[in-house]
Amino acid sequence: MANPEAVGTAFLDYFYGLFATNRAGLASLYQESSLLTFEGAKFQGQQNIIQKLTTMPFQNVAVQRDTVDIQPSISGGILIFVTGKLMPEGENMPLKFSQAFHLMPTPSNSFVVTNDMFRLNYG
Amino acid sequence: MANPEAVGTAFLDYFYGLFATNRAGLASLYQESSLLTFEGAKFQGQQNIIQKLTTMPFQNVAVQRDTVDIQPSISGGILIFVTGKLMPEGENMPLKFSQAFHLMPTPSNSFVVTNDMFRLNYG
Repeated sequence: MANPEAVGTAFLDYFYGLFATNRAGLASLYQESSLLTFEGAKFQGQQNIIQKLTTMPFQNVAVQRDTVDIQPSISGGILIFVTGKLMPEGENMPLKFSQAFHLMPTPSNSFVVTNDMFRLNYG
Repeated sequence: MANPEAVGTAFLDYFYGLFATNRAGLASLYQESSLLTFEGAKFQGQQNIIQKLTTMPFQNVAVQRDTVDIQPSISGGILIFVTGKLMPEGENMPLKFSQAFHLMPTPSNSFVVTNDMFRLNYG
């Protein structure tokens, strides 16, 4: 990936756009080896990950990115580290979160999420 | 790495032990290709990274890990994602932080930090 910053930013635009209103649409980003750790609970594979993402207690949610850090990984992928706020529709209090991704390129010049780790930052 | 959880936890014990009281001692964990993004500022290579880590505004600091997530990476390494609190000596207010690491094994059965991303979580 020639420009990790550009690729990573484009990924985040795409990812959080779907996360906000159509989480089932994220399926193509995950493969059978993909790992998600969501609030400490572990999920592997496209189907398990999408089932988790689509059965969260909120539906539509606005996502605000406060900080985004992007680095190339030694494996030819990209590491992305985000802090920000989720604002579920109809809720007044934003939920602070941190999230780390590892992306790997695919032969079709796209990328998949090999690793996804998400934490809400309480208190 | 047969057991990412065990290796990752041992790494964190070692890393934060030195981070707390002897950050110069972290040098052996970084190589010339290692990347650190600290509060958005980018550093590459052992010397630059250690210079940054040893010139932070606090010296001794207690580190409390609130959440630790560990996943194997597709490259044979380990991804670690930490949220917690820094308590600099003499300060009353803990500083909340998030940190992501990518570790790679070395031929000598040790590991190096290839990627390190650190953010304080304000407000």
